Amino acid sequence: MTGENQILEAQLPKLHQYPPVVVGPGDDCAVLDLLDSGKQQLIAVDQVILDVHFRLETDPRRVAAKLVRRNLSDIAAMGGMPQIAVKTIAIKLGSPQAEQQWLDAFFDGLATESDRWRLPLCGGDLSVLPQYGIITTLTITGSVPQGKAILRSGGQAGDWIGVTGCFGNSYLSGHHLDFLPRLEAGRFLAETRVSAMMDVSDGLLMDLGRLCRSSQCGAVLNTDSIPLRSGADLPAALNDGEDYELLFTLSDTARQKLEKSAPELFPDLPFTFIGRLNDSHFLCDQMGHLLCPKGWDPFLG
Amino acid sequence: MTGENQILEAQLPKLHQYPPVVVGPGDDCAVLDLLDSGKQQLIAVDQVILDVHFRLETDPRRVAAKLVRRNLSDIAAMGGMPQIAVKTIAIKLGSPQAEQQWLDAFFDGLATESDRWRLPLCGGDLSVLPQYGIITTLTITGSVPQGKAILRSGGQAGDWIGVTGCFGNSYLSGHHLDFLPRLEAGRFLAETRVSAMMDVSDGLLMDLGRLCRSSQCGAVLNTDSIPLRSGADLPAALNDGEDYELLFTLSDTARQKLEKSAPELFPDLPFTFIGRLNDSHFLCDQMGHLLCPKGWDPFLG
Repeated sequence: MTGENQILEAQLPKLHQYPPVVVGPGDDCAVLDLLDSGKQQLIAVDQVILDVHFRLETDPRRVAAKLVRRNLSDIAAMGGMPQIAVKTIAIKLGSPQAEQQWLDAFFDGLATESDRWRLPLCGGDLSVLPQYGIITTLTITGSVPQGKAILRSGGQAGDWIGVTGCFGNSYLSGHHLDFLPRLEAGRFLAETRVSAMMDVSDGLLMDLGRLCRSSQCGAVLNTDSIPLRSGADLPAALNDGEDYELLFTLSDTARQKLEKSAPELFPDLPFTFIGRLNDSHFLCDQMGHLLCPKGWDPFLG
Repeated sequence: MTGENQILEAQLPKLHQYPPVVVGPGDDCAVLDLLDSGKQQLIAVDQVILDVHFRLETDPRRVAAKLVRRNLSDIAAMGGMPQIAVKTIAIKLGSPQAEQQWLDAFFDGLATESDRWRLPLCGGDLSVLPQYGIITTLTITGSVPQGKAILRSGGQAGDWIGVTGCFGNSYLSGHHLDFLPRLEAGRFLAETRVSAMMDVSDGLLMDLGRLCRSSQCGAVLNTDSIPLRSGADLPAALNDGEDYELLFTLSDTARQKLEKSAPELFPDLPFTFIGRLNDSHFLCDQMGHLLCPKGWDPFLG
């Protein structure tokens, strides 16, 4: 069976990139040479789908929060500032009343999130579906100082691997609906000159695998050091996904700088070092055992 | 039962707009103060859904063309130039093979359209659906000279109502898949200083009604003058939708300017004057009979 990664590896090369695109598909955001001198624009899009990312019992306000925050997390992962967003909704429920009730609460949630993150939702499209279902999407733009977007591809053998927050058990704990996008931490890490960064949405191992592939590195993880969310064991932390924490790599010097300033700037957010990049093509633990990503793939389940 | 217009009228006011948003929801694009001095950014998003906008028998390359061109038509309707786009795809068909085959042809179509319109597709998201279906979205950005975006709200009593191309029978004729977005005509009309403009996607009468509401005007249509697509009668031309032509209003002076230069610049594209705005709140024909939009609403069918 074919996973999302394989499908995209086959299809994305068909799409040619040229100016104003500086960084195209394959990172958390695309990077565009479009803004006032001194800045570049970021753009990302994400989907939140009924019975994939939430259940009909889920409060539509929390669905709206998840939709907005997933996208904010992509801006955070580049070290950027959010600008604006546009949304789409395609919906069919049991009755027009049920649809209206769902939409009413969903827009309440969008309004709350928009105000909270000062992210104007300036456009969109609403359509009916032919079958039962809800598919929502959000496209977000952001900005980053010229040349300062942190990509997945900048990691180097010898760099430390760091993460914000903790991992695993996101779905059962409700973290996947309530997480806070790491916007300030993302900008702090960008200023600290981390070499590579991304957000962890599909599982720590799977996303670290992506960062390593982009950076043409391998990695050794000290699995004892991976911070576990309450209710999570190590396999859950490595593979569950939906953590929306930042995964980054940095030099020895940058690590020292981070360790000096982070505790004061972010007293409530742990930054943890969980391993190092190397020049292999594998992910291993501290015992030399191969680690295989079992992270979430929408096409493999 | 509640239509899309009613739902949005109830929900959109919840979403607060502030800088950089100059024009928020309710026009073909949002207008943003984000670009280099002298320009503003446009953004729009649209959906193309299986069994709403196309059938499974439809060549996925034509579905891709429709998705890209609908969005280009929104940029055209503001008088803008396209910049970049990002897409989402959510899919579930009978088998992984069927999905891969559909996606392969769809990406071929995206690549062709991207190259044809020089519109880089620089990002996206691909997900599985829990039920049978295909939902695709495209978000597009564009640019327009500062303060020169043509809105729906600029029409004035006494202005002429003009259209490009012809109307009706779009679905059966295949026009809804093969139409050409009126990008050059849109920029020409913007330079000609039309007072209001939009593209016609939901039916000429329904969309004229929207332009009139935005402009706080009514209109008299000379229904004899409405250009019919082959196979269309007047009711079809007024209500079918999916024409993707430009609807615009302009002063006497601007009309004279247009009539002088359009035939040479656009030898193959008819510009037709079909009525005038007035200070009523109604749409009437030349006999004074009320015209009621029966255009397509995804929530009313």
